[in-house]
Formats: sequence, C-alpha cells, structure tokens
Amino acid sequence: MPDSNVINIAVVGCGYWGPNILRNLAAQKSTNINWICDLQIARAELIATNYSSAKVTNNIGDLLADSSLDAVVIATPVSSHYSIARKFLLAGKHVLVEKPMCTSVEECDELIEIASQKNVVLMVDHTFIYTGGVRKMKDMVAAGELGDIYYFDSVRVNLGLFQHDVNVLWDLAPHDLSIMDYVLQRKPTGVSAHGACHLAGSKIENIAYLTLLFEDDTIAHFHVNWLAPAKIRRILIGGSKKMLLFDDLSPDEKIKVYDKGLVLDNKTDSYQVLSGYRIGDIHVPKLDTREALSLEMEHFVDCIRTNKHPESDGDSGRRVVATLEAAQKSLARNGELIPL
Amino acid sequence: MPDSNVINIAVVGCGYWGPNILRNLAAQKSTNINWICDLQIARAELIATNYSSAKVTNNIGDLLADSSLDAVVIATPVSSHYSIARKFLLAGKHVLVEKPMCTSVEECDELIEIASQKNVVLMVDHTFIYTGGVRKMKDMVAAGELGDIYYFDSVRVNLGLFQHDVNVLWDLAPHDLSIMDYVLQRKPTGVSAHGACHLAGSKIENIAYLTLLFEDDTIAHFHVNWLAPAKIRRILIGGSKKMLLFDDLSPDEKIKVYDKGLVLDNKTDSYQVLSGYRIGDIHVPKLDTREALSLEMEHFVDCIRTNKHPESDGDSGRRVVATLEAAQKSLARNGELIPL
Amino acid sequence: MPDSNVINIAVVGCGYWGPNILRNLAAQKSTNINWICDLQIARAELIATNYSSAKVTNNIGDLLADSSLDAVVIATPVSSHYSIARKFLLAGKHVLVEKPMCTSVEECDELIEIASQKNVVLMVDHTFIYTGGVRKMKDMVAAGELGDIYYFDSVRVNLGLFQHDVNVLWDLAPHDLSIMDYVLQRKPTGVSAHGACHLAGSKIENIAYLTLLFEDDTIAHFHVNWLAPAKIRRILIGGSKKMLLFDDLSPDEKIKVYDKGLVLDNKTDSYQVLSGYRIGDIHVPKLDTREALSLEMEHFVDCIRTNKHPESDGDSGRRVVATLEAAQKSLARNGELIPL
Amino acid sequence: MPDSNVINIAVVGCGYWGPNILRNLAAQKSTNINWICDLQIARAELIATNYSSAKVTNNIGDLLADSSLDAVVIATPVSSHYSIARKFLLAGKHVLVEKPMCTSVEECDELIEIASQKNVVLMVDHTFIYTGGVRKMKDMVAAGELGDIYYFDSVRVNLGLFQHDVNVLWDLAPHDLSIMDYVLQRKPTGVSAHGACHLAGSKIENIAYLTLLFEDDTIAHFHVNWLAPAKIRRILIGGSKKMLLFDDLSPDEKIKVYDKGLVLDNKTDSYQVLSGYRIGDIHVPKLDTREALSLEMEHFVDCIRTNKHPESDGDSGRRVVATLEAAQKSLARNGELIPL
Repeated sequence: MPDSNVINIAVVGCGYWGPNILRNLAAQKSTNINWICDLQIARAELIATNYSSAKVTNNIGDLLADSSLDAVVIATPVSSHYSIARKFLLAGKHVLVEKPMCTSVEECDELIEIASQKNVVLMVDHTFIYTGGVRKMKDMVAAGELGDIYYFDSVRVNLGLFQHDVNVLWDLAPHDLSIMDYVLQRKPTGVSAHGACHLAGSKIENIAYLTLLFEDDTIAHFHVNWLAPAKIRRILIGGSKKMLLFDDLSPDEKIKVYDKGLVLDNKTDSYQVLSGYRIGDIHVPKLDTREALSLEMEHFVDCIRTNKHPESDGDSGRRVVATLEAAQKSLARNGELIPL
Repeated sequence: MPDSNVINIAVVGCGYWGPNILRNLAAQKSTNINWICDLQIARAELIATNYSSAKVTNNIGDLLADSSLDAVVIATPVSSHYSIARKFLLAGKHVLVEKPMCTSVEECDELIEIASQKNVVLMVDHTFIYTGGVRKMKDMVAAGELGDIYYFDSVRVNLGLFQHDVNVLWDLAPHDLSIMDYVLQRKPTGVSAHGACHLAGSKIENIAYLTLLFEDDTIAHFHVNWLAPAKIRRILIGGSKKMLLFDDLSPDEKIKVYDKGLVLDNKTDSYQVLSGYRIGDIHVPKLDTREALSLEMEHFVDCIRTNKHPESDGDSGRRVVATLEAAQKSLARNGELIPL
Repeated sequence: MPDSNVINIAVVGCGYWGPNILRNLAAQKSTNINWICDLQIARAELIATNYSSAKVTNNIGDLLADSSLDAVVIATPVSSHYSIARKFLLAGKHVLVEKPMCTSVEECDELIEIASQKNVVLMVDHTFIYTGGVRKMKDMVAAGELGDIYYFDSVRVNLGLFQHDVNVLWDLAPHDLSIMDYVLQRKPTGVSAHGACHLAGSKIENIAYLTLLFEDDTIAHFHVNWLAPAKIRRILIGGSKKMLLFDDLSPDEKIKVYDKGLVLDNKTDSYQVLSGYRIGDIHVPKLDTREALSLEMEHFVDCIRTNKHPESDGDSGRRVVATLEAAQKSLARNGELIPL
Repeated sequence: MPDSNVINIAVVGCGYWGPNILRNLAAQKSTNINWICDLQIARAELIATNYSSAKVTNNIGDLLADSSLDAVVIATPVSSHYSIARKFLLAGKHVLVEKPMCTSVEECDELIEIASQKNVVLMVDHTFIYTGGVRKMKDMVAAGELGDIYYFDSVRVNLGLFQHDVNVLWDLAPHDLSIMDYVLQRKPTGVSAHGACHLAGSKIENIAYLTLLFEDDTIAHFHVNWLAPAKIRRILIGGSKKMLLFDDLSPDEKIKVYDKGLVLDNKTDSYQVLSGYRIGDIHVPKLDTREALSLEMEHFVDCIRTNKHPESDGDSGRRVVATLEAAQKSLARNGELIPL
C-alpha cells in the first residue's frame, strides 16, 4: 500500500476503550475514520460527533460491504471477538482486536490461519507492551542485564468494576500475561490457578492467583483482584545478576533496578547462612513517556502500509489465550497443573 | 505457683533469636535466667556475660538434672525442637519453643499430649500475634467490622539469608500462617503450593506461593521469598463491609481500614458493570507499640504462674505445622491440593 | 438574568490554561462560547475547531463591540489582566480573570470599584479553592476541628517552566496564598520574603520563601521553587487540637488528619521535657473528586445568573496581590518585614 | 600517645544521649571508661551497671583531679557546655562536647584558644557528618557532580519533646547547619529567621524558619519544627548539573541523584518558556551503613592517639553557633538579615 494513500479504518464497539482508540487513530497521519459501529446506535452517534468523516451504523454488514474500508479495530466484548474478526479477515480487511484475542485457542488458530491466507495484518491490542516501562524491561532482559531470570511476580489489584461476561482472570490477567510474554520471550510449560467468587450468587471469580512453570526453574506468578482496597500494579523480576521492581503507579520511578543478588559462599556457618548477599546501587532509568496507545496505533498503521508483522501479533494473542484457557481449566480443578 | 516465687528459666540455643529472648525474659519480674545452653559453648559464654546469674553449658542434660529449673525456652534449629522439647516436657518443665513448633504434625501431637499429661505450659513462639497491629486486626475481624472475610493475602519478601536446614516455606510462612490463624480464627480445608530453587545445586526452595481454601468462599494466599530486591511485608484482607491493608514496614500507618466495598446494583448495563462500588473514608487506628517479644515473655511467665493456656499454644503451633506439612507435600506434587 | 437565557461567554487568551477553561465552560448548561480571542490568530483558530459556535479574533475590540456578549474569561499574561479586565467591566461584561488578579493592589482596587458600579460579577480564577481537598480543609478549620491554628506551612516545588514575565513568586505562590486565604479566613499582618535567581543573566527569581505573620502567634510559610528535582505539593497545618497534612499528589490520601498534639504537663523533668504529647488515630476523609475547574465555571455562571458574589471574588484576588506586592518589596530589601 | 596505651575516658551527663555515647565508646579498642558523672548520682549509678570499670560521681572535681583521665565527653545541657569544657581543657584533657558547642561565639572562641594552647583535641558531636548519607553528599558536591550549588533546602520536623532550656532553633538546627557546613564547605554571609511560640505562656519557639545567604546566588533554608504531625527529614540540593534529594527516613533510598536540570534555550516563546528542562535517570547510591556514632567515637580516639584535627572540630562548632546566635538575633528583630 503506497504511503501516500489514506488508510480507511473503522472502529467496532464504542464502550469504555473504543473512544481512546478512536482518538489515537485519528491522530495518525493519512488515516481516515470512515465508520463507527456499535450495537447501540445512539452510543455510536454520540462518539461520532468528534469524527466528522465517520459514518455511523449498528450493523457490521455495512462495513463489510464497504470496499473502501482497509482496516478495522474491534473493541467489543470478548465473546464476539472471534466471529467479528473472522468476518473482516475473510473480507480481506486488516484487523486489530482487543485483548484477550478470543475465548479459546481454537478460535485464535483459525483467525491466524485466515489472516495468513488473506495476507492481512492481524494484531492484538496488548497495549502495555507499547509502554516505555515494559519496553525497557524487555530490553534489559534481552541484553542479559538481569542474568538468568529466576521469577516474574505480578500483582494487579484494585477496586474494579465487576464485568458481567468475564471473570477477573480474563479481564485483568491478559495485561500481565502479555507483558511477561513480551519481556521474557519464553513460553511456560504449565499453569495452575486458584480463585474465588465473592459476589452473592455470582459464578464469576473476582480474585485469582496463577502460577506458571517453565522448562527450567523459572517461576511466574500473577495476582489479579477486582476487590482490593488499594490499587497495586507491581512486577518483581528476580535475576541471577540484578533484580527489578516495576511499579506502574509511580509517576517518576516506574522501574527500579537493584544491583543486588546472591553471593555463593563456601563457608558453612552452622547457625545461619548457606550464602550471603550483595547490595549495590539502585538505578531508575528514564523511560519513554509517549502514550502507549498512540505508539500502538502508529505501529498498526505502519504494519498495514509496510506489510509488516506486528509485535503483538496473532501468535502473541494466542499464547495469552492458551494460558487463560488452561488457567480456567485449572481453576475448575482446584489448581491442578495444566500443561501448555 | 505463688506469685512471689522466682521462676527459673533456661534458654537453649543462642543463635540469632536467643539473645532477644534472653533480654526480654530477664526484664520480667521475678524471673531468673539460671542456664544458658548452646552446643557451641563459647557462644553461650559470650551471651552469658550479660546475665550474671546464668550457668553455662553445652549439655541439656545439665538442665534436665536441675530440679530448680522451672521452664525452658528452646531456640534451636527446627529439626531439634521435638526431641529437646519432649525431654523437658517429660521432666515436667514448662516449654516455650521457637516457630515452627516441629517438623511434623505427629511430633506436635506427641508434645501436646505430654504437656497435657504433665500439666505444664506448652507455648509456641508466634511472636507476631503479640504485636499491636496483629491484635488490632484480630479484634476488628472478631467484632465483625470487616463483615464476612473474602480473602487474606499476605506477602513477605526480602533479600534474606538462605537457611541451610529449611526452605523459605518453613522459614517465613510460619509468621504469616500464625497471623492468619490468629486473626481469622478459622481452619483452612486444603492447601496448594508452588515454589522454586534458584541456588545452584540447592534443593531448598527460596520462593514459594501458598493458596489456602476454606469451607466457604474464603481464600488465603501467601507469597514468601528470600530473593526479592525490596522488602515487602503486607497483608490485604477483603471483607464484605470493609477492607484492610496491613503494612508492617510503615512506621506510623501499619493498618489502614478502608470503608470500601461492593454495592449490588440491580441495573444491568450491557457494557460494563454488574455492580458498583462504594468509597468512603480511610482510618488509621493507633496501635499498641510495646515490644511484642516482651509481651510474649510476660504472657509465658503469666501462664506458668496462673496455670493458664497460652494464646499461642501447642494447638496453634500444630495448625501451622499441619499447613506447612501439607504445603510441602503439595510442593512436591506440582501444586496438588492437599486436604487439611 | 432569567435561568432560561443562554449566557454568551468569550475567552481571551489561548495559552496553556485557556483550552481547559473552554472545555469546562462549554460543558455548562445554557452557556454559549461565542468568541475565542488570542493575539496569535492561528492559535485561536486551532482551539476554535472544537467550538463550532465561536467566532475567532485577535482584537478584543470585536468582543467589546458585541452587545450579545455577557461575560468574558481572561487568561492572558498577568501584565495585561488589568487593562483587559477594565475594558470589559466598563463595557458591563461579567469578568473572570486568571490569577494573580493584577500586578498591584492599586489595579485590583480600581477593578473592584468598577465592577461594583456596573453591578457585574468580578471573579478571580483561584482554582484550588474549588477542589474537594481545599474545601475539606476549610470546613474542618471553620468547624474548629483543629482548634487554634498554630501554623500553615506550604511547599510547592517541581521542575517547572521558567516564565519570562513573572518570577516564581507571582507564578506559584498565588495558588498557596489563595488556599491559605480561603482555609484560614484570616488576614496576615506582615510578610517577609527571600529568593534567588539561578538562570544566568536572569533577574527572575526561581526559588522563594515567604513568611507571613498574623496578629497572634499564627505563622504561615511558603516555599515555591521552579528548580526542584521532585514534585512536592504539601501543606502542613498545626492546630491546638489536631494537625493536618495535605498532599496534593497522593491519589487516595490527599488529607490526613492526625489526632496528635501537645499535652501540658506540670511535672518538670530536669532532663528533657517541658510537656508531653498525645498520639491518636489518623483519619483520611473521603473527598469530593469532581473537577475543580468545572465546579468553578458552574459557580461563575451561577453568580452571573443569580447576581451572587463569587467565593473567589475581587477582594480575595486583591488580598493575594497585596501579599505578593509586599513580598516582592521584601525580596528587594533582604527579607525586611513589610506590613500588610 | 602510643597506640598500645589505653585511653581513659569519662562521660559527663547521662541524659538521653550519654548512654549512646558510652555504648559506642566502650566498643572502641584500647579505651577504658573510668568515670561516669551526672548531677543525679542515681542516674549515673544506673548507667554504670553496664560499665564495670567506671567509677561514679556527681562532682566533676573528681574527674579533674584524676591524672589518669585522658579525655572527657560532655553530654550535659547546652548552657553548661562552656564552663565544663573549659575546666577540662585547662586541665589538659581532650574534649568531645555535645552540639551545639556553646551558647555564644565568644565562648566557642575561648575554648578553641585554650585547646590550641594546651594542644589537646577539641571536638564537637556533629553526629550526622559521620553518617554514610551525609558523607556521600559531601563527596558528590566536592567532586563537582552537582555543578554549582543553587540551593540547600532542609526540613526537619516531627512531634518532638519540648526542651525547657533551648528553643527548636538551638535544639534541631545544629544538625542541619552542621550538615550544610560539611557538605557545602562554604560560609554564609547572613541569616534571617522567623519563628513562633505556641505553648501557652512559653517564650520558647517551637517552629522556626532560617534563610542563609551567601556571597553569590546560593541560598539555604531550614525549617525546624517540634509540633508537626508527621516526621520529615529531608534535604533538597539544587545544582547546575544535577539535583539531589536526601530523605533520612528512607530505609534503602536515602539519597536520590536526579540527572535533571535547566537547558538554556535561545528561542523565545511568547506564551510560556524562557528555557526548557532536561530529565534523565535517577541514581540511588549505596551508602556506608555503619553506625555514625561508632565511627565518630573511633575518630575521636584516633585524633587523640595521632594528634589529629577532628573533622567536626571547634571551628565547625563555632560556625554553627555563629549562625544560631545571629538567627536568634534575627528572630527577635522580625527576620532582619544579620550579617555573619
């Protein structure tokens, strides 16, 4: 697609996230928002007042029928991702779909296959991997600055809105699973999950704990919780050389790198220590503070123009869904370890 | 035992904790430290320079043979708790033993039985339940201020010394399990645990995650870690009425009580919410700041004098060991849920 | 002015703050933005794209000539506040002017006099007094919850943009002086100020300290700084009954009320104390989290409709300017105490 | 004095600080505590139970008459420092005196003169300059890492005991003035001070603000307060290259060095900026965590043995007292700038 051509993009789904996507899409060069679609037409019309070029509909058929449409961003409830994305991919449109990508690995596989056949971009909205903080963590791990990775411990808790269609696992954990997938660039071999439902009569877990095992001794753990009094968004990464604390709520010090670790010691003191530890400086790297969603939309448009594979591609979406699917199974089986 | 009589107490084991116990025991009214015992006699002699009345030995036989000895505090490595405590109980001495009480439930049961037969005090050094913060949490839960308890989430991580005889589970989790046992006053029905060993060649876990289930929907979770860059000691308790954050490292604000919670809402918004939430004031109660170990030693002496049952009795020690034993089994079975 | 009538409002000055004012003005019921004015016409045109009803000009004469115009918000550099506001007041328009109100008390007095003669609203944009936190502090002080006020200590420092027309005193201190004026509802009797200029060749102070004295022993102090590595926005208020900490950067705990204070003690210990202190609970009240600028615009419109006197009226603007003017004089005289 | 010889040291004054000094003195090699003196003989006797070699008296004449006595540490109330120190210096004893050194510059001068004539060590207990944090700040400033120093801003507030003999200025400010004196290695040219007394009937200031001016544009400021709800011990240092935040209450991150600063910019934007700013990494250096008082006592003993001039010598004590004396005068004259 020549760089000079305008890319026509539609947004399907105008709930909480859709307007943010629209704002960042509209700010990209040579893009045109030509459709805004929502089942509640009034909602679509309200949002569309800010985008004069956009037509409004509650019927995705109108979009599928529009041959000038190049790409679509799907920000609907999870359960509809697969069926909507499938239609647009089959129609040869580039697709960016909200996280989690689908409700099963099987659905993911089909979308990946269709996108490949149609040679269109299939991207998943793993927004966090476009933040300066997560990119810095990935770079540090890739450069070996932390040494071998011992553990990845993530906590994402707050007093959140209960979703009616997905539990806290499918709502919050995709963020952290996609971050881990991107930072470690490794695949877990099994997952174990526990959770509980505290809303009377609800079958929807509002708290969950996931443990991920790997081929070696690396261990990853996730705490997601909709019912916590204080907001905590924190990742600890322990490595053989250095350790890292990521606090997403800190305005200036999101990442702290600790020059700390174990020191093997041959002496055996029968009272206490098998080994000692080393304590050095702490470093707080400056991060890229540009808005992640803007960088992500830029990347989506760039992938469309240059026929590039996105960083958060269908495979990464599939890996996250595979873990969620297995975790859900483990949840139903009292934490049984489910292989991945 | 008449209040006027001096109680003669011995301390067995002069590692890290022994001197703290001695200092607080010596400060109690009408107590006399008459023996200090350690396998390394030089260590015992060094410590004894501050306690002029104490005789020194590396042989507990000397203590057992001393008919004037009333009570003993055992601060030796875990593996020896059972055999040493057993001898003193059989000799009719009151016993305060370090946490964890023993290495198995079977051993705990035997000690409890002997103490009962001999009508002597058997107490476990669950120091944290004598702190102002933990007592306040217990009082609040008992008074129903938090409502039904939804979850108990505990994190105790730091860059700690590796122990050569026990893993991080047996080293750190007794603190948090005894706190939960005391605050909730409820027994879990099962435990699942995961962990990993990162010290080359070591079979000793330095990181572990425990999930405890209960008869109802209450869930408890524990993260213990010897290899974290920053020190975190934090407990979150979620209740149907209020929620609580305990940060043991905060000098002035260890407990924050949040007047927050769910509000059931009959309206169903197809976009987002099944229910809303309520946000009110935060309250930071003033806590008793007296030294916990001093209050605990006072309690031990008081139990001896008045033939009272200690708050951290053998049964509480047994409950903690039962959970640790089951968690260790789960650890070996990839997180299999072990009934309690 | 009948409630049904639309109020026509113009905004003069489209720098950093103007667009925020426009957004909040436009959200008020029955208001119409009919002019957007800026010396740089291109800037005004850019901003006006979001306000389709607004005409654009770089000439305030166009606004003065528009008899349908009811009110104007002046968000220009400080030096022009007086001359612009004067013209609109004389033309019978209601005026809301940025802080600080003018560059001298004399100018303030003239504007107040004209507004009174013309019977129009004259309001100063002391935004902070419309925040939930500042209102809570004012209510607590007014209700006597803190007892007698001993001191008001304010720190507002960050790495800020150097202004080319005003120093840090005139740029940042109006925020804190207007907060103090509103919270304490008392007038200081004198001011002393120190500062320094660190930008090579600049005569514009980038750091300043102000001390305000009152008729009794109350003391107020302000630290304003454009060249601090970390952002601090904190007010301490000491009272005879309780004390208060306001941290504007805390997301959830902006106000902490400490039940702490002195306890007079007749005993005299020749070693240490003349008196002891009392330590009680800490309370974090829930605050109104609505956007202050929106509440302020609502108040401006309400004052126009109901011919009410604004909370941040010309007199409050004058009190702030009086302190700034005296502080500037003190700055030039090495901190000499200037009476107010 | 040959290194092999034991140094005999006495401590005069056993209030709050005396026992800390004794503990650290006793831990030095080849020192002997041979006298403990306090006006309240019972207090001296109580303390002496831990120092078996020490004789006890309430009469400093006993110490002066003891020819075996080499040195004395004076930890009495400020008003007596001069007269007691003078006697020991005249008797040829080495002297370490609590801060502030004396109540006037005149007294300081006389002590310095006598110490010089008698060729004995005269040291002032400016404990903070022996901490790892303050030493690190001094090293960084000396190495030019911060560039030119723009400002030194210090806050030391808490809910403290009211002293009956000195105000908050003489009680708390010596800490910060000695830190500044050591870190900047520069002399101020004038001081201005404000304060207030809030204890009914008291003439003793419990809150004070000091501003210190220098020959160039450097400015220093101090806030000391006995009546603050929260403990704050914080120093900000602004430099032309980097800036620094010292938070003495942070367990792990006492010093943060910000790679931040101004960037001169020739472009003039008529709306906002005269210059921009630069934001880089933050660095938290590892600090020496040894106990400052121990290092200080080691230094005192070392100065005695090697006839060395102490880092916190009489001159540094005099500089602190000079500032306090001038600040006290300024306090009485409404903040008038008093030359130094």
